[in-house]
Amino acid sequence: MTLSRAAIIAVGSELLTPLRVDTNSLFITEQLNLLGVTVTMKAVVGDDRAELAHVFRAMLEQVDLVVFSGGLGPTDDDVTREVVASVLNRPLAEDPAITARMRERFAARGFQMPMPEINRRQAMVPAGARVIENGRGSAPGLWIDEGARLVLLLPGPPRELKPMLTALVENDLTARTSGHAIVRRIIRIAGRIESQTDETLQPLYRTWSDQSPPVAATILAALGHIELHLSTGADSREAAAGILDAAVADVVAVLGADAYSSDGRTMEQVVGDLLVARALRIATAESCTGGLVTSRLTDVPGSSRYVERAVVAYSNDAKIELLGVPAELIEEHGAVSEPVALAMADGIRARARVDVGVSVTGIAGPGGGTPEKPVGTVAIAAMTSSATRSRVFRFIGEREQVKFQASQAALDMVRRMLLE
Amino acid sequence: MTLSRAAIIAVGSELLTPLRVDTNSLFITEQLNLLGVTVTMKAVVGDDRAELAHVFRAMLEQVDLVVFSGGLGPTDDDVTREVVASVLNRPLAEDPAITARMRERFAARGFQMPMPEINRRQAMVPAGARVIENGRGSAPGLWIDEGARLVLLLPGPPRELKPMLTALVENDLTARTSGHAIVRRIIRIAGRIESQTDETLQPLYRTWSDQSPPVAATILAALGHIELHLSTGADSREAAAGILDAAVADVVAVLGADAYSSDGRTMEQVVGDLLVARALRIATAESCTGGLVTSRLTDVPGSSRYVERAVVAYSNDAKIELLGVPAELIEEHGAVSEPVALAMADGIRARARVDVGVSVTGIAGPGGGTPEKPVGTVAIAAMTSSATRSRVFRFIGEREQVKFQASQAALDMVRRMLLE
Repeated sequence: MTLSRAAIIAVGSELLTPLRVDTNSLFITEQLNLLGVTVTMKAVVGDDRAELAHVFRAMLEQVDLVVFSGGLGPTDDDVTREVVASVLNRPLAEDPAITARMRERFAARGFQMPMPEINRRQAMVPAGARVIENGRGSAPGLWIDEGARLVLLLPGPPRELKPMLTALVENDLTARTSGHAIVRRIIRIAGRIESQTDETLQPLYRTWSDQSPPVAATILAALGHIELHLSTGADSREAAAGILDAAVADVVAVLGADAYSSDGRTMEQVVGDLLVARALRIATAESCTGGLVTSRLTDVPGSSRYVERAVVAYSNDAKIELLGVPAELIEEHGAVSEPVALAMADGIRARARVDVGVSVTGIAGPGGGTPEKPVGTVAIAAMTSSATRSRVFRFIGEREQVKFQASQAALDMVRRMLLE
Repeated sequence: MTLSRAAIIAVGSELLTPLRVDTNSLFITEQLNLLGVTVTMKAVVGDDRAELAHVFRAMLEQVDLVVFSGGLGPTDDDVTREVVASVLNRPLAEDPAITARMRERFAARGFQMPMPEINRRQAMVPAGARVIENGRGSAPGLWIDEGARLVLLLPGPPRELKPMLTALVENDLTARTSGHAIVRRIIRIAGRIESQTDETLQPLYRTWSDQSPPVAATILAALGHIELHLSTGADSREAAAGILDAAVADVVAVLGADAYSSDGRTMEQVVGDLLVARALRIATAESCTGGLVTSRLTDVPGSSRYVERAVVAYSNDAKIELLGVPAELIEEHGAVSEPVALAMADGIRARARVDVGVSVTGIAGPGGGTPEKPVGTVAIAAMTSSATRSRVFRFIGEREQVKFQASQAALDMVRRMLLE
């Protein structure tokens, strides 16, 4: 029997507070989608036997695969094993091999005491269940064939759940699914607004929905960029990936350099890769972004090869002393102006003796705005020995949003300059 | 009848992809907790009538309040209204007042065309339901008394849902709940490890659990700090808040300056408030954190009052030129060393002519580590005219985690210095 519809149940009272969100289900969904299994519902239930049993029964009526995450620990609050065994009428019995492995694990970690007896709860297995080894923790997973249906119990900690599920998706689960893979890709787009991008892409949407298999597209506005989410299903992961490769090429043909990433890379990674490929070094002069442009550039491993230095010139004094911006220029145009941004980029580039200089000066808010230069006004400049770019932007949002959008626009300006 | 147990159902197929998570339920939980209502289960269901009806029926058996978010839009994919009406056997009828309001709204927004007829779906109301006005969007909410139970339908966009629910919690819902409020507070702690803090707080936990009403405590390790989550229930929000005030004072008495925030303020806000209170200005010299310390300081509105400048001296040249670090010092001790950190803090403080200088130099990884100075080694120094602090830390984790922990330790060093 081929599995096609799944439900995910996250177990744990901490997931029912305002402070914690279930993110395991996102990873589980992604992995199941790779096998062509659609997640049709998700639930979060506390450490309550009756409620968990109720929700499990309700889900079991609707789907052919139920995946649990969490509730497999050793304490009385960990109820998943028991509830599943009881709903499926399978008595629990201790698996001595699991107990022995846990005792070894415990001893190997060098504790001064033997394994607490309570941990033996983790060795209880419902009749007919298969034990899935956990390489990173004490709670094994469980695989239960229930007629045509499958029930999987996975541990809650992501570092235990992820490798366990990845292995299942690569091996045991393939035989139980259609092999019809659903694959997704995200194209990141800068320098455009959502509605206009959506309109520009309409002819592509029509082509994609008419083709077989169709490609589904969703456009989402994110801070400082737009995301186009593409997905398609095909007989294999490779075939689906090939269809999405073609769709990405369609988008790039229409949007050109505005589409900056289709492989998960962030803007700072794309800029870093361009700097490495061209063997260029960069220095940054920031005012309102307060170091954020440089912090993002240096989030990328290996960025010490191309980031030489940066100056956060928050005060006018600092702009004059550290970047050589003429005081008269600030007086004449104001610190937030294209001429000052250009002088800052020029100053940092010359003083750091690097190839690329980039600068940001603006009003992040909430204070400091004027009628001519409201909060969100940001001047950005980028320079190489042969090229100069500058522009005044007007960003909308709170302080941190303005900072992020300004950092994104500065990195994007460098990217476009390097592409030419 | 007093409502005490709630279920939340988020509706929308986009919430069943690997890319989106339901966060409305966190806000809904927080608000319901204020009224003493506990959320016992949550579900996410796609835009599918049969599945939504199934889950709604299952939840309705278990709780006395069901809150829906989403699925109230005008298109055929928006199924919540219809499904709820059908499960509760209440025929839908158009409410002409809603249609009229929507037409006005549409006209006021200056569109060149009349409201599409499809939008009239949003004016359909199940028999006996009360309409809840939506000040920020076209979809009204719905309040349905179903015997002793209550069913609420709220719009999905957070900016529409939040004010609507806040108003309900402040007004209509108070009469339907116990008035027994559950209030939570988070204490943030730096400079300690989780297990040792947990042990230190054990006597407090015992006192709190023995008192009436008890205070529940959960300790969580976060990146760069520990969080102690406290919650209690009392007859009023004010009474519960008073009990938590006392519990916070207990913790501060035990942990002293290690407890840096109990009112939601971040480390950078706490440092900023101290600088403002003492009328001091700060300048930063960063290497491995790449501007992150300064970016965090300048995330705080009004930080231009106390942040003067910063230098990101990634290369040795930059450390020498911009901060006056002697080349011999780098040669003798290495760029990642306490003497160099001290020279950087001294250099930036002198050159920026400010009261406080702080510096960070380290190995963020993944490259650059040596047996003596492995990845994660970070030297931090802070100086005022009268005080000097420095220390070498060893952080664990990936590059971005090392950067964040180093920025946190630098801000914390400044905070402790200013407290003395």
